[in-house]
Amino acid sequence: MQPFVESLSKCPKHGLHNPFKSPERYLLYGDISAKAAHMLALPKVSDFFTRLIQRVSPKSYQQAFGEVYVTQKFLENFSGDQVRFLARSFAVPGNHIGQQSHGYRWPYGPVAIITPFNFPLEIPVLQLMGALYMGNKPVLKVDSKVSIVMEQMMRLLHYCGLPAEDVDFINSDGKTMNKLLMEANPRMTLFTGSSRIAEKLAVDLKGRVKLEDAGFDWKILGPDVEEVDYVAWVCDQDAYACSGQKCSAQSILFMHENWSTSSLISKIKDLAERRKLADLTVGPVLTVTTEAMLEHKKKLLQISGSKLLFGGEPLENHSIPAIYGAIKPTAIYIPLEEILKPANYELVTKEIFGPFQIITDYKKDQLPMVLDALERMHAHLTAAVVSNDPIFLQDVIGKTVNGTTYAGLRARTTGAPQNHWFGPAGDPRGAGIGTPEAIKLVWSCHREIIYDFGPVPRGWEIPPST
Amino acid sequence: MQPFVESLSKCPKHGLHNPFKSPERYLLYGDISAKAAHMLALPKVSDFFTRLIQRVSPKSYQQAFGEVYVTQKFLENFSGDQVRFLARSFAVPGNHIGQQSHGYRWPYGPVAIITPFNFPLEIPVLQLMGALYMGNKPVLKVDSKVSIVMEQMMRLLHYCGLPAEDVDFINSDGKTMNKLLMEANPRMTLFTGSSRIAEKLAVDLKGRVKLEDAGFDWKILGPDVEEVDYVAWVCDQDAYACSGQKCSAQSILFMHENWSTSSLISKIKDLAERRKLADLTVGPVLTVTTEAMLEHKKKLLQISGSKLLFGGEPLENHSIPAIYGAIKPTAIYIPLEEILKPANYELVTKEIFGPFQIITDYKKDQLPMVLDALERMHAHLTAAVVSNDPIFLQDVIGKTVNGTTYAGLRARTTGAPQNHWFGPAGDPRGAGIGTPEAIKLVWSCHREIIYDFGPVPRGWEIPPST
Amino acid sequence: MQPFVESLSKCPKHGLHNPFKSPERYLLYGDISAKAAHMLALPKVSDFFTRLIQRVSPKSYQQAFGEVYVTQKFLENFSGDQVRFLARSFAVPGNHIGQQSHGYRWPYGPVAIITPFNFPLEIPVLQLMGALYMGNKPVLKVDSKVSIVMEQMMRLLHYCGLPAEDVDFINSDGKTMNKLLMEANPRMTLFTGSSRIAEKLAVDLKGRVKLEDAGFDWKILGPDVEEVDYVAWVCDQDAYACSGQKCSAQSILFMHENWSTSSLISKIKDLAERRKLADLTVGPVLTVTTEAMLEHKKKLLQISGSKLLFGGEPLENHSIPAIYGAIKPTAIYIPLEEILKPANYELVTKEIFGPFQIITDYKKDQLPMVLDALERMHAHLTAAVVSNDPIFLQDVIGKTVNGTTYAGLRARTTGAPQNHWFGPAGDPRGAGIGTPEAIKLVWSCHREIIYDFGPVPRGWEIPPST
Amino acid sequence: MQPFVESLSKCPKHGLHNPFKSPERYLLYGDISAKAAHMLALPKVSDFFTRLIQRVSPKSYQQAFGEVYVTQKFLENFSGDQVRFLARSFAVPGNHIGQQSHGYRWPYGPVAIITPFNFPLEIPVLQLMGALYMGNKPVLKVDSKVSIVMEQMMRLLHYCGLPAEDVDFINSDGKTMNKLLMEANPRMTLFTGSSRIAEKLAVDLKGRVKLEDAGFDWKILGPDVEEVDYVAWVCDQDAYACSGQKCSAQSILFMHENWSTSSLISKIKDLAERRKLADLTVGPVLTVTTEAMLEHKKKLLQISGSKLLFGGEPLENHSIPAIYGAIKPTAIYIPLEEILKPANYELVTKEIFGPFQIITDYKKDQLPMVLDALERMHAHLTAAVVSNDPIFLQDVIGKTVNGTTYAGLRARTTGAPQNHWFGPAGDPRGAGIGTPEAIKLVWSCHREIIYDFGPVPRGWEIPPST
Repeated sequence: MQPFVESLSKCPKHGLHNPFKSPERYLLYGDISAKAAHMLALPKVSDFFTRLIQRVSPKSYQQAFGEVYVTQKFLENFSGDQVRFLARSFAVPGNHIGQQSHGYRWPYGPVAIITPFNFPLEIPVLQLMGALYMGNKPVLKVDSKVSIVMEQMMRLLHYCGLPAEDVDFINSDGKTMNKLLMEANPRMTLFTGSSRIAEKLAVDLKGRVKLEDAGFDWKILGPDVEEVDYVAWVCDQDAYACSGQKCSAQSILFMHENWSTSSLISKIKDLAERRKLADLTVGPVLTVTTEAMLEHKKKLLQISGSKLLFGGEPLENHSIPAIYGAIKPTAIYIPLEEILKPANYELVTKEIFGPFQIITDYKKDQLPMVLDALERMHAHLTAAVVSNDPIFLQDVIGKTVNGTTYAGLRARTTGAPQNHWFGPAGDPRGAGIGTPEAIKLVWSCHREIIYDFGPVPRGWEIPPST
Repeated sequence: MQPFVESLSKCPKHGLHNPFKSPERYLLYGDISAKAAHMLALPKVSDFFTRLIQRVSPKSYQQAFGEVYVTQKFLENFSGDQVRFLARSFAVPGNHIGQQSHGYRWPYGPVAIITPFNFPLEIPVLQLMGALYMGNKPVLKVDSKVSIVMEQMMRLLHYCGLPAEDVDFINSDGKTMNKLLMEANPRMTLFTGSSRIAEKLAVDLKGRVKLEDAGFDWKILGPDVEEVDYVAWVCDQDAYACSGQKCSAQSILFMHENWSTSSLISKIKDLAERRKLADLTVGPVLTVTTEAMLEHKKKLLQISGSKLLFGGEPLENHSIPAIYGAIKPTAIYIPLEEILKPANYELVTKEIFGPFQIITDYKKDQLPMVLDALERMHAHLTAAVVSNDPIFLQDVIGKTVNGTTYAGLRARTTGAPQNHWFGPAGDPRGAGIGTPEAIKLVWSCHREIIYDFGPVPRGWEIPPST
Repeated sequence: MQPFVESLSKCPKHGLHNPFKSPERYLLYGDISAKAAHMLALPKVSDFFTRLIQRVSPKSYQQAFGEVYVTQKFLENFSGDQVRFLARSFAVPGNHIGQQSHGYRWPYGPVAIITPFNFPLEIPVLQLMGALYMGNKPVLKVDSKVSIVMEQMMRLLHYCGLPAEDVDFINSDGKTMNKLLMEANPRMTLFTGSSRIAEKLAVDLKGRVKLEDAGFDWKILGPDVEEVDYVAWVCDQDAYACSGQKCSAQSILFMHENWSTSSLISKIKDLAERRKLADLTVGPVLTVTTEAMLEHKKKLLQISGSKLLFGGEPLENHSIPAIYGAIKPTAIYIPLEEILKPANYELVTKEIFGPFQIITDYKKDQLPMVLDALERMHAHLTAAVVSNDPIFLQDVIGKTVNGTTYAGLRARTTGAPQNHWFGPAGDPRGAGIGTPEAIKLVWSCHREIIYDFGPVPRGWEIPPST
Repeated sequence: MQPFVESLSKCPKHGLHNPFKSPERYLLYGDISAKAAHMLALPKVSDFFTRLIQRVSPKSYQQAFGEVYVTQKFLENFSGDQVRFLARSFAVPGNHIGQQSHGYRWPYGPVAIITPFNFPLEIPVLQLMGALYMGNKPVLKVDSKVSIVMEQMMRLLHYCGLPAEDVDFINSDGKTMNKLLMEANPRMTLFTGSSRIAEKLAVDLKGRVKLEDAGFDWKILGPDVEEVDYVAWVCDQDAYACSGQKCSAQSILFMHENWSTSSLISKIKDLAERRKLADLTVGPVLTVTTEAMLEHKKKLLQISGSKLLFGGEPLENHSIPAIYGAIKPTAIYIPLEEILKPANYELVTKEIFGPFQIITDYKKDQLPMVLDALERMHAHLTAAVVSNDPIFLQDVIGKTVNGTTYAGLRARTTGAPQNHWFGPAGDPRGAGIGTPEAIKLVWSCHREIIYDFGPVPRGWEIPPST
């Protein structure tokens, strides 16, 4: 561990570059990005990474390819001069001749990045490059189960020109990493992962963190019923793609009563039942055992009026080790009134990081109850309001806080690309990923430089003390 | 305390207003600001507040008036539509027809503000109004010794249209406030004050804070010696105005050897000796006793090569209670080499929140040693680089991180107005105050709304699961 | 005329101020704006200007007061530091140490402003102040029929601190003004008025103009029929307030067939017939005679299928001189198919600057015909799409170009305030008014300053010629 | 010509895409840009274009390669999502629930681009792609002498995915193009070329133009003499690279008297005399004959106190046709006082588009005379202030208007890259090239969409007419 501590300590607080230091490095990173994007666009390379992701993180080829594609597009976005454009500052005239105030984006210097198992390429690359673009020196730790993906990607980045000494890549367990953080004392730590660890790190690091943690993500179907097939398909993907192991996965669905008479639920059921282990459209759950999920199901079904809509059984004919989970895509109906009861609320809104969702419905005049359920949640990551009624949309949007919220008939909760912000809202520690705004927020801070050159006014005399 | 907890709890996370909820409140706050600015511009009112500040926070009339003036200008800045302009969002075309992604500024809802004794009007008004502008409901605690100023200002704001239920104003000790925070669990807490409390709050509130704490603020005089009178006067004001009780006060001065042969030090001494208790150009120190400051002086003077330049004695003929401090404006010279020694560094760079500064000098080739001294400091608030040499400036600026850094012959460390950012840099928890950027950073978070109305493409069919 | 030419010529191209010259003037204009806004907020002053407007420009008290109110709010928006914030620049790191590129907003220096009769206060104040804020020296000409309003306002501005030499206020006919422009050769001329003069000026001044001219403004009612009373009222106001003498007045209404069976038209008729000369809710038309309007009506009624919906008669019992127009609020129905015929199109879409509108309807599948009619128009100022159907809205918005387009059930064509952009789109000469963006576009240009201080790299040697 | 007229007329005013129409085309152009950038980065391709440029536009390999390189970097800048980021809009909360105002960037639809001989690749590609990015349909005309370069580039762009129908590429003389413009009536025309044609087009097209024309570009050497070798080399490149056939070429040099005693002039002379036809570091002048240049020299030398510093003779041993010019790099000294005389001013400041510059000097107190000379010029394209004295810099910058102004010891007038704005200032018709800001200014206009969905307030009743 000591070499990592020393390496990080060597980086000054003003970073490896900033607008007044080594600006040519902004260009270097524009070049690296263009080259790496081009590499990832080669079918041979993208296929290699897609399959590598699949070997360690259970998801379909298409879902794994999605990571590679988003990563490639992200790198394209920061080709050429676009890295230096991230360091764009602004200035305002001062009070007298010779004075101007400038607001710059400044790096933190030594920083740390900790990323989870479920997106072994996309999350670490996007956060790592963001940190580097702004002038930081990161130590990067990816969940050891999947870190081979990033290990290979580091080699690709080195090939594309990344200086070896710019990034420290560590392969360790969480405990060692925690110790490293305590000793190396990075100026900022980006953590993506569970809420439990996130809260612990926030205390350990005295708040010098940006976090992207859990999400008990909700979807509301509004009063206007349209395109049932499409909405059902999106629900299936949102709840069950990657076996529900996305922090953006749909955890609860609120249906307006108008949808109850549609074929929506039966269609979602049909789609869920298409999923199979063979192509990993459903597969192992890495952080919850089969037993734990079935136990959770059992508890939920003890709630009055609840029922199993589909799933709720273990997967069959597989060799998934017992330390992982393996269940069929599952949906459980709970009446809205029951969800809101204090005795049930915590249970119902417990995030199961697997192919598991709650479904409920609400009457026309019950929207306030739905909004109350949302307000009481703890994590506010993604959400969807499926409706083309602008009045309904503004009512729900104006009374909620989820960070990435899709609105409209084609709304989804998952599949956030690199072109818009992804991250929680409502928390000053909340991180963002992907966009120029996210990079600037997470990986740089404001520094104000006020030039005051003069001249001192002719005939100036020393005024009285104040 | 309970009413405060309940009142805060009533505010939802989406705030009192946001771009989709009660937008007319943005206009209300534009009106309140215009009216309050006009009131503060009335000589009778500004004189009232200036004298009220003087009664509780020891500073000269001019310095106290400065607070009123900055507050007035700040309020002018957010007249008319300028509050809603703070909520300006942006949008980007999506992937297909009907899709657009929007980035909004969202409030946190229930929030807390804790402000110190030294700026009883400016800091609480600027942070309070910023919080309100963005749609938050704040509970405000001002240091009890000086809270009468803000108590009067609240009445003025109510008179100008502030709804009584928008702000909870609490008068309590720190312990009670801490308990309130633990129970009410505000989504964000802005703290301005000592580093010790700041670090404690960061842990207690698990990082849901923005902080503006200490500053061992430095000034460097570059190789170009010019306008010695002017620079001496600025040094005197930076180090000793408000008896050094500004978080931006000059704590250490690094002189290029070219200045050593000038009359600078003797001029600073003359200016310091003009200061007198009668007009509060020097006065009581509220957080350090006379004894403690003299003891600190004594320790510093034990360092090899150190010497007392001026001051270093108690004020005389006064009735300042012994729990406060009362010393003459003081400067102590310490050789640069000694400052850097591990045995001395912590002692020399200890912030004394009173009329007390360290002065040192450096040779042409010793700039790296100066930069090393700066890098090792803990708090990075204000700084000044007094030089009109652009190469020298960029060298120092590029290798430091202080948040508000003045550069040029007229550079100062204190006196930040409302028109540029004021706050520390290099810390993700760092707060800013005053400008639109500061308000947006401290009092709102990013929320992404992605509209995806469709239509679903004609002939769309359900694709395979992924 | 000569003094005006000389005064203008004295102003250099770099203006009265810019970020590198007399920046204190930005603050001066922040002060002037705050003071003038406060004056206009005094009931005595606002009533004076409202009545003064009414004396020269025929409109109701409420409509005249609207001008005063918008002007006041505009001035509030540029109080305090907000004028200097308009001069905000940006910077980007360069290729090597010492290099940074900055984009500034630069004034034009000597400029001219020509404004029309229908908004004697709002248009000249907003454009004049915008020009001044950015550092220009304007000569201002307001239509002589109404220039007394601005003459009084100039006195108020002088009282609030406007330096007398900053603005030249000329009272002349158009011919003289044209000659002045030819001789003084302002760097930029803002013209608001008729298309005929606008086109002539564009040629005379070789394109150094920004124009806000005619508008044959349209409103489309979408398929969703709701709030008929409200929509009827908005139609009445849009078409007939100020006797239709707003460049944003509704000139043509396209109704989806779903509205035809509603009471909309009869309600619009009732509302139109409430209007009376006594309170100037209908009144003199300053640029079209009664005869000309009746003649136009007659020609329109010769189109096959056309019919008079209401109005179409002269006002009675009045003393309006014959050089002005005086007719009842008028609406004429023309079938959509007829409008599109080449023989009719120019006639139907001729702008009548009076209380006169065309009404037509379209069937569900005729939206492309409506869009075709819009595409063929010449001026693209305001528009309204009255619908809450997002798919319909995006279809119309995506296929049109009007500069200020209202969308949604509450959409209107008139009544643009100071808080959003007002101006035509689709023309590089198009001006905007009111917002920070409009001011920056119309009254300043981009200037790039690239700092390149060095140092020259150690050991640099002269390379070969290229 | 007719097919071009028809093709242009088919494009509606709302363009081929905009944020509400075919947004997938923004992504298409991100892809085209990434691919074309990658192609131009291939040594084989870049060498091909470099040599092709050299065949038609006389410049050295390095200068021609510079065009290819800048073009490649520009294309990298708009890879991935960066084209849609150009269409970024903003929004502001409205007055009541349901209202929000949005400012969009809208295309002009059918547009024209006319570019000159001296940058056969860089100027047309950058302007063409900018036009396309924003949704316009351009007809492009490149000077026929050099249009083969762009003809080849069009093929490369088609290969990279550019739809054939998106651009009309015309090869014609100016007269035909003028006729085409008159008939097709593009909504916007970008012209880069001579002032004479620019002014004519401005009238013909009634101001619907953006222009980048002449530049009698100046360089001022400030009082601080340093790095004489470096400054001499930059002067040589600025004045004589591409045989002075850049619109940014240094036309006049103002030396502070402190430089007169340096070896600067003799060094510039030595460097100028290194240039040779063999490698095209000096070569044919395409728009001025040898005779005309020698005649100009002769006239200048008749001015009192003037002298030939070097050059002033025809090139020898060449086969350059007599319709072109061929002279040695030339510098003529004229005393400042003589330049300012009305009888001389027009002559001295006449732009010679060849390897020809004026050199003068000024005394410490003559800076106002220099500034007067600058103010009287007609075109304000590039400029350089060679000094590291911030007070001197702000004095010159604050009193001038050139659009692209380099400041600092390393200041130059030529060699503007893609990462900062290039274009004239001080003229509302002025175009910019290269940066996101330039693209948005030249190729799009502001369109304001104000959503006003409601709901209409409960209990709303029709108010009185106004």
